[in-house]
Amino acid sequence: MKATIVTIGDEILIGQIIDTNSAFIAKSLDKIGIDIHEVISISDSRDHILATLKYLQNQVELVVITGGLGPTKDDITKKTLCDYFEDELVVNEQVLAHVTELIEGFYKRPISQINKDQALVPSKATVLHNKVGTAPGMWLKKENTVFVSLPGVPYEMKYLIENEVVPKVVREYKRPFIIHKTVLTYGQGESLVAERIEAWENNLPEFIKLAYLPSPGRVRLRLSARGTDEQVLQNAIEENVDSLSKIIGDIIVGYDENETLEVILGRLLTKNKMTVSTAESCTGGKIAQLLTSIPGSSVYFKGGVVSYATEVKTEILKVPQELIEKYSVVSREVAIEMALGAQKLLQTDYVIATTGNAGPEKGDSPAEVGTVFIALATPNPAPNNIICEEFHFGQPREKVIDRAVNTAFEMLQKEILKNLL
Amino acid sequence: MKATIVTIGDEILIGQIIDTNSAFIAKSLDKIGIDIHEVISISDSRDHILATLKYLQNQVELVVITGGLGPTKDDITKKTLCDYFEDELVVNEQVLAHVTELIEGFYKRPISQINKDQALVPSKATVLHNKVGTAPGMWLKKENTVFVSLPGVPYEMKYLIENEVVPKVVREYKRPFIIHKTVLTYGQGESLVAERIEAWENNLPEFIKLAYLPSPGRVRLRLSARGTDEQVLQNAIEENVDSLSKIIGDIIVGYDENETLEVILGRLLTKNKMTVSTAESCTGGKIAQLLTSIPGSSVYFKGGVVSYATEVKTEILKVPQELIEKYSVVSREVAIEMALGAQKLLQTDYVIATTGNAGPEKGDSPAEVGTVFIALATPNPAPNNIICEEFHFGQPREKVIDRAVNTAFEMLQKEILKNLL
Repeated sequence: MKATIVTIGDEILIGQIIDTNSAFIAKSLDKIGIDIHEVISISDSRDHILATLKYLQNQVELVVITGGLGPTKDDITKKTLCDYFEDELVVNEQVLAHVTELIEGFYKRPISQINKDQALVPSKATVLHNKVGTAPGMWLKKENTVFVSLPGVPYEMKYLIENEVVPKVVREYKRPFIIHKTVLTYGQGESLVAERIEAWENNLPEFIKLAYLPSPGRVRLRLSARGTDEQVLQNAIEENVDSLSKIIGDIIVGYDENETLEVILGRLLTKNKMTVSTAESCTGGKIAQLLTSIPGSSVYFKGGVVSYATEVKTEILKVPQELIEKYSVVSREVAIEMALGAQKLLQTDYVIATTGNAGPEKGDSPAEVGTVFIALATPNPAPNNIICEEFHFGQPREKVIDRAVNTAFEMLQKEILKNLL
Repeated sequence: MKATIVTIGDEILIGQIIDTNSAFIAKSLDKIGIDIHEVISISDSRDHILATLKYLQNQVELVVITGGLGPTKDDITKKTLCDYFEDELVVNEQVLAHVTELIEGFYKRPISQINKDQALVPSKATVLHNKVGTAPGMWLKKENTVFVSLPGVPYEMKYLIENEVVPKVVREYKRPFIIHKTVLTYGQGESLVAERIEAWENNLPEFIKLAYLPSPGRVRLRLSARGTDEQVLQNAIEENVDSLSKIIGDIIVGYDENETLEVILGRLLTKNKMTVSTAESCTGGKIAQLLTSIPGSSVYFKGGVVSYATEVKTEILKVPQELIEKYSVVSREVAIEMALGAQKLLQTDYVIATTGNAGPEKGDSPAEVGTVFIALATPNPAPNNIICEEFHFGQPREKVIDRAVNTAFEMLQKEILKNLL
């Protein structure tokens, strides 16, 4: 089964917003064995929508459309779908009751004509009930293609995909199996990894596809197998991942497609009953924020200090003033004292500390823009109770912060793994 | 001039990564008056790429392609472009010298065949030199369409768009003017805003388009004017924004398209020489992280405490233990003490404090999942030195955190503006 995802809205075409909806839909459909043919963003003009529907008719079996279903005048998807299906809009009583309940019951204001109009749907559509918003989803079929139209508000779209679209597709259509397996590596660039695994790659069976997904400091390798026999696919993937691990086991850090380092760290810390805290300067709280983005993180994350101003470093983290004067705030010495100070203050096994100049301007230190010191306090006896490294991440600011955060997580991961051996 | 943006790579089609490149390219082209017709993501298969090139030929004047230029086997854009242009790959000496310099000089390792192959380009292509990476950009013209191919690594793509593609288009093509103006509102939903401005919207001139961009708690209204006389467009936009402000001035908080609340806050704080710090529990450092994402934030942001564990609240922020026992950690009383404790500790004019349960599980408090208390310490004399509000943001966790952060910024903005009057 082939599908195309269509996003309607000028805000994507002028780059005002990033299309995150399509990635969510793609992932959800891919999981149930649907092959995503294309993702298309078009303007919210009637002609453009009609031309796109026509172009997709019978090219794919499923078209998932988001956007253009809100209550306002720039939302024209519903009317255009009606035209395309030579249909008329009729009031759906169940949707009307739900919208009335939501507006009058929850938001406590009188229902307006604009709200009532949200209950209008093409008469041929199967309504997909949107419990978390006012715009209903719609399912319409013409010849060999099903057109599903969903609101563009992310959590409403997500609700409808998970609770309506995916279950309905699973019930009504046969699909092949697709299995992905991602191998996370770090420390070597894309071309070096490619060279090391060239012979292995050339020996992959026809039905397994390999993709390289590079990002600063790491390369993810994604194997995708497609076929009708799930067990055959599963075995082939496992076999090939095993043989890959024998070649580049030294740089492999994980295997789960969605696994971010903060998820891996969370699991490691929870399992080993260890705790972590942070003392952040140039990363400004991002390390704490990512650690706490994981449900259940309160088990291992106790807290942190964002010591942006120098006096926060000296007064809260107790970094000696003389040290700052001698070496400047962006220095190995200060990073180490920040980590040890936070460890004393917050009483955790590990502490991640960062100090650097993220730019774009030079700050209170002679250090070059892009320089970052990352210190890690550990539960080991001295001198292994502290590690510190210096990095030069260049520019822009955003990249410096992101690389510092990633690198800090990698240092922590390496250290925890080392202590477990 | 019409353009279509094409992203090549299975990782987008299976939802493994979000396509942020297209938004950047769209925004850059929109700024110079190019009309983005479509944004398309396709698989990295030769047939699909060829079919797409053919489909776009003469439909638009400019096609910007990203992805599929890396050194590894899954990158086939270059070879396919060669086929489409009935061309052959030749070594570009300037690119070869640059790749050699980068690998041997910067990365300090011997150059491999895979690296050398990156200097191969179609003979008909104008090379766009990529100073920040090894894959060159390419500019190829056929009939009425220019095809530009760029690497998919975001900072390499950005470098080439800003330094090569945009300057070349500006030099070589005539384009109309496009002016966007965004009006940021908050506190009222999309349909309520639509009702209030209905008459104004119906009176907009033909060449001005209005779009509603809703997100939790706020609606952005975007006016886009297009034409040949820049002054006429500018005047019409200004006139209509003026008349709009007269109708909904009470809910307008800003006018800049890209302006996030943290940018607005940064400007307000800098201008008024005021400082802020944070005491975050459920938001886990995200408020500090967003405040420090702005260059120059060290002028007004001094630091923060992420007090995730209860003992961090009592020991560092000095929240009385009895208060926590009596009211629980998720309470108005604790939020207020966190803010006042941080104000004393960090000595700033304002403090944002959050405590809540972001879910998915109930925590150390009887408070419902989604409950958040936000307190704001101010420089005003008591009892106006502290404000605290209670919110119920529902689920999922991510939404609770994001809405808490947004709401906290809105409270701070409102308070600063009030104090300036």
